Amino acid sequence: MKAKLKLTLFSAVAAGLVSVPSFAQSPAEKVYIPHGKYDEFYAFLSGGFDGQVNVYGLPSGRHLKTIPVFSAYPMNGYGYSEETKAMLMTSHGWIPWGDSHHPELSQTNGVPDGRWLFINENNTPRVARIDLKTFETTEILEIPFSGGNHASTFITPDSKYITAATRFSVPIPQKDVPIAEYKKYFKGTLTFIRADKPGKMDIAFQILVPGYDYDLAHCGKGPSYGWCFFTSYNTEQAHTLLEINASMKDKDYIAAVNWKRAEQCIAEGKYKEVKTKYAHNYRPPEGDRIARTEWKTSVKWIIPKECPGVMYYLPTPKSPHGVDVSPDGKYIIGGGKLATVIPIHSFEKMINAIKNKQFAGEVEGIPILKYEAVNHCEVPNPCLGPLHTEFDGKGRAYTSCFISSDVVIYDYKKCKVLDRVPTYYSVGHLMIPGGDSAKPWGKYLLPMNKITKDVFLPTGPELPHAAQLYDISGSKPQFLLDMTELGEPHYAQAIPASILMKKSLKIFELDKNTHPYATKSEEAAKVVRKGNEVHIYMTAIRSHFTPDNIEGVKVGDTVYFHVTNIEQDWDIPHGFAVLGANTSNLLIMPGETLTLKWTPKEPGVYPFYCTDFCSALHQEMQGYIRVSPKGANVPIKYGTGEEMHVVK
Amino acid sequence: MKAKLKLTLFSAVAAGLVSVPSFAQSPAEKVYIPHGKYDEFYAFLSGGFDGQVNVYGLPSGRHLKTIPVFSAYPMNGYGYSEETKAMLMTSHGWIPWGDSHHPELSQTNGVPDGRWLFINENNTPRVARIDLKTFETTEILEIPFSGGNHASTFITPDSKYITAATRFSVPIPQKDVPIAEYKKYFKGTLTFIRADKPGKMDIAFQILVPGYDYDLAHCGKGPSYGWCFFTSYNTEQAHTLLEINASMKDKDYIAAVNWKRAEQCIAEGKYKEVKTKYAHNYRPPEGDRIARTEWKTSVKWIIPKECPGVMYYLPTPKSPHGVDVSPDGKYIIGGGKLATVIPIHSFEKMINAIKNKQFAGEVEGIPILKYEAVNHCEVPNPCLGPLHTEFDGKGRAYTSCFISSDVVIYDYKKCKVLDRVPTYYSVGHLMIPGGDSAKPWGKYLLPMNKITKDVFLPTGPELPHAAQLYDISGSKPQFLLDMTELGEPHYAQAIPASILMKKSLKIFELDKNTHPYATKSEEAAKVVRKGNEVHIYMTAIRSHFTPDNIEGVKVGDTVYFHVTNIEQDWDIPHGFAVLGANTSNLLIMPGETLTLKWTPKEPGVYPFYCTDFCSALHQEMQGYIRVSPKGANVPIKYGTGEEMHVVK
Repeated sequence: MKAKLKLTLFSAVAAGLVSVPSFAQSPAEKVYIPHGKYDEFYAFLSGGFDGQVNVYGLPSGRHLKTIPVFSAYPMNGYGYSEETKAMLMTSHGWIPWGDSHHPELSQTNGVPDGRWLFINENNTPRVARIDLKTFETTEILEIPFSGGNHASTFITPDSKYITAATRFSVPIPQKDVPIAEYKKYFKGTLTFIRADKPGKMDIAFQILVPGYDYDLAHCGKGPSYGWCFFTSYNTEQAHTLLEINASMKDKDYIAAVNWKRAEQCIAEGKYKEVKTKYAHNYRPPEGDRIARTEWKTSVKWIIPKECPGVMYYLPTPKSPHGVDVSPDGKYIIGGGKLATVIPIHSFEKMINAIKNKQFAGEVEGIPILKYEAVNHCEVPNPCLGPLHTEFDGKGRAYTSCFISSDVVIYDYKKCKVLDRVPTYYSVGHLMIPGGDSAKPWGKYLLPMNKITKDVFLPTGPELPHAAQLYDISGSKPQFLLDMTELGEPHYAQAIPASILMKKSLKIFELDKNTHPYATKSEEAAKVVRKGNEVHIYMTAIRSHFTPDNIEGVKVGDTVYFHVTNIEQDWDIPHGFAVLGANTSNLLIMPGETLTLKWTPKEPGVYPFYCTDFCSALHQEMQGYIRVSPKGANVPIKYGTGEEMHVVK
Repeated sequence: MKAKLKLTLFSAVAAGLVSVPSFAQSPAEKVYIPHGKYDEFYAFLSGGFDGQVNVYGLPSGRHLKTIPVFSAYPMNGYGYSEETKAMLMTSHGWIPWGDSHHPELSQTNGVPDGRWLFINENNTPRVARIDLKTFETTEILEIPFSGGNHASTFITPDSKYITAATRFSVPIPQKDVPIAEYKKYFKGTLTFIRADKPGKMDIAFQILVPGYDYDLAHCGKGPSYGWCFFTSYNTEQAHTLLEINASMKDKDYIAAVNWKRAEQCIAEGKYKEVKTKYAHNYRPPEGDRIARTEWKTSVKWIIPKECPGVMYYLPTPKSPHGVDVSPDGKYIIGGGKLATVIPIHSFEKMINAIKNKQFAGEVEGIPILKYEAVNHCEVPNPCLGPLHTEFDGKGRAYTSCFISSDVVIYDYKKCKVLDRVPTYYSVGHLMIPGGDSAKPWGKYLLPMNKITKDVFLPTGPELPHAAQLYDISGSKPQFLLDMTELGEPHYAQAIPASILMKKSLKIFELDKNTHPYATKSEEAAKVVRKGNEVHIYMTAIRSHFTPDNIEGVKVGDTVYFHVTNIEQDWDIPHGFAVLGANTSNLLIMPGETLTLKWTPKEPGVYPFYCTDFCSALHQEMQGYIRVSPKGANVPIKYGTGEEMHVVK
């Protein structure tokens, strides 16, 4: 009681006795979300070498979910359950890992709309769609004729297309050639993927381009709608020791692609249909929810010189990494990582330069525009190692600078530096909510760093990556938070919580479950032998499985546990695991059916159990499956709590 | 500048103009770690169905690292690199997933000492050791004759033993028997693992016990040193619908095991050596760092009736889950999940009851002590569904209560309830730093919950698990933070940062790297063909690989990229990936060698690259490997930046 009577400064403030202007809020108070309140933004950070998308709440920095995308995820069975295995299929076989880079929210009229999130895979080229009702990956499309898909998944303002491009040029199509003959054989492709129809992602066309490395991209909006911009480096076309050999030229290029013109060329038949094989994996977010792989067999190639006007090169200093378009669509900013300035191109000047044929040359039929003719200005002495740019919607651009470990803030129309803030350390991408869209929400800035060193408690040689959160709503940026990240985020996107949280699905409706092995009531549970396959139609509900005693399985059988969670309450998943399975567990959401495949090797009686604590009697949620020797005369039997049902 | 001149309350406080007593700190200020400061505790939370250990900083709740233990981890190649594959080997084959439950820090004199962290796997019974210099899993031991290893890895105060026990009884040894003959054939084992010699974990002995479900454990200390206590449930020996059939009896048992007596019986030859096969996987934390599997071939069984005095049963209401020993070693608290009281047993009374043979019966030679003879008291009306207990070192016990979603705080000597705090929702385990040791550090309480529902922004049907952090240093617990968790933490341990952070390794010393394929300088890099195997001795340093051009590989070859990170600076890892590999990337720490196995399927030229952004020229850190058709006459060639070296 004594404590309660003390009138402290804090309690005085809390009681409203002392008026504190919101300006006075400390960083601690600004990032703290009291119990009963929610974070203000969902932030989607790519996982980089973890292959996933990690969802955080801002401003708290709390991790909300890892959405498995390109890497198998033992935690919930993604890539292991029979329903999700096909998501990781490629023309190179089943691949349990990916390198996810650039998340991009779907847009309507240039504004993120919260329907989907796209993300690319850089190693074995792919793009994915995540459904933001379920926060699940529902679609993965492989990109053929690509040697690493980095400039991806940047979107057009109407979500019609997402981009992909060859990071590393390769022989196209692949063939056995000496590496030294790079200049002769190696090419790049810029790929446009039709993205606005869920379940129907497909390659609209690929543009065959010179054998450079294509790095990042962004698409135009407003006046520049119809265009997308890609950075390239290694225009030297080096194939070895690139850190020296690809850093020779003072300028490389931003490729400006007129995709409206490309559509015309396709319509006019000015393309080449090329045979190939690549995977399209789709998991319906409703119905049976079983992922399937469809093998695609060709793509349409546009050859720039056969489709004049489809593409121009904008010289840009030096080895440009990021390319970002201002919210009004008028300016294109290149992040020349070895440049001493930040070059800002003008879309209007570019169009005029094209009209006036202000060319400095051409490559493989692609005109190179004169730098002076397209350049709006160069931001002088901005920082060291400029990489990526985001916008706050108030006329300010924010560019991350790797070498000087800071973010430079400038008026991009006037090319005038306004401010800078430190990062800890060696910032790569940075993110402002809506910061690459037509209408940034602004408010927060999140630089994501490549080096952490002494920011957090050490954890052996392997440290987490770090980000800093800044409040940019005031006249000066305010440092708020050092947050840790999973994997290595390359870019992120954020959207106001109010847009997503209402549409977030709580359960899967059991009535709508059309999985062929769904078991919608305990009465319907059964065990069926089909030759050497044993299919167990099983239900899970607090706190038992039906059936929970199973006999008649033999060594040499393949057992499929098809487990339906027949709960219809929010946040009541059940897990499923069986001793000795060389796969993961299943984490089954209410109304969902997932399947675990098990090939028992020795006779015996093996336990299975619920792996996700579900009730006061969760520990009792277990069962046994008996495995008899090959050829044993033991019939299929099953039951829960009563006489076993014998299948004759 | 205007902003700087305003004297706000916050800036006045910050400037020391206003004195704020620390008592007045808000939860926000208490959990906030300013830039340049560190968290106060390392907290190790088990990942449950994610199979790992997740390390957090407290009080900030920031995730510092996921330590892969029982599940393959594509992010850093654990389970995929040739050096770590063997860690996931079991007698059932290679298993990419585990269910990790109870982390336990090594102890000296009953106090966590920060040398190692142990953790169990519940599905395919195993225990693991994590080295806290490197924060890596260095050792995994399989437990034979077990059907799920839940009561694990609880430690003796000298770290001599860690425990393991059958969660689900099974036929021991396994055989093909009808499930209905459970009572006749199914047994349990309580396993004691010698744990104090890194790299030499081994089963000291197993005690063959009745076919109940064994749930949790804790070992005695001080006066009760030499004993460990295990809860059991399902003493009904039900084999189906356990939620009803295993909840019939009013009391089940806590098994009190005198491991000193067990040692005597072993020394006197009163045991049975039983043949079996189980895996011991060890990855040396230094030297070659290559995990190897050693197959163990037998265990020693103690049969209680042949080793009188080794074990007693303490009746305990009802279906007890947790069993926890007070810091002074005098009291044993059972968490009877269906009980209406919290029973506290007295070690002293137990010893007297044994002396005085106050038995209520016996099971398979194991005396059952009289409840009244051992019970110190029952905490009346504590809460609903009591599960686990931790201690603050000030005479208070904290028990988590699943059904009433709270933590009850009581004086465990006087059996008097003092306070309770809410949890959101349905708390399972709870943790106080050092809270199961002889000297709890106290200060914080972390209840970890099974249900989250509305605490955080929704993320579709699958939500994160939640924990709440309380400050328990004052007279009343103060709610601090809702934090999210990865996977499903079952128990956690925390240790002051000051103990661990100084011994944390920053790099691996290249000089001490004895990996047979280590390449310690660029001059030593080479490519060697051995039949159909191609071994690439490769170095990685900012920002190139040596060699970065490789030819002479044929379809049908197996390629081993042995990549040595020759950096010796802190926080400069390099990654490695190659297009189309059906494995993960490698994340290679300074001084380390890791190996990626690749079996190219089609002729062509494939890029490889660094997956962890390492310098301003990271994007240039790439290379090519040429794959020729089977039988092609292309010799092995390799190089970086110069003429290729040709192997004749």
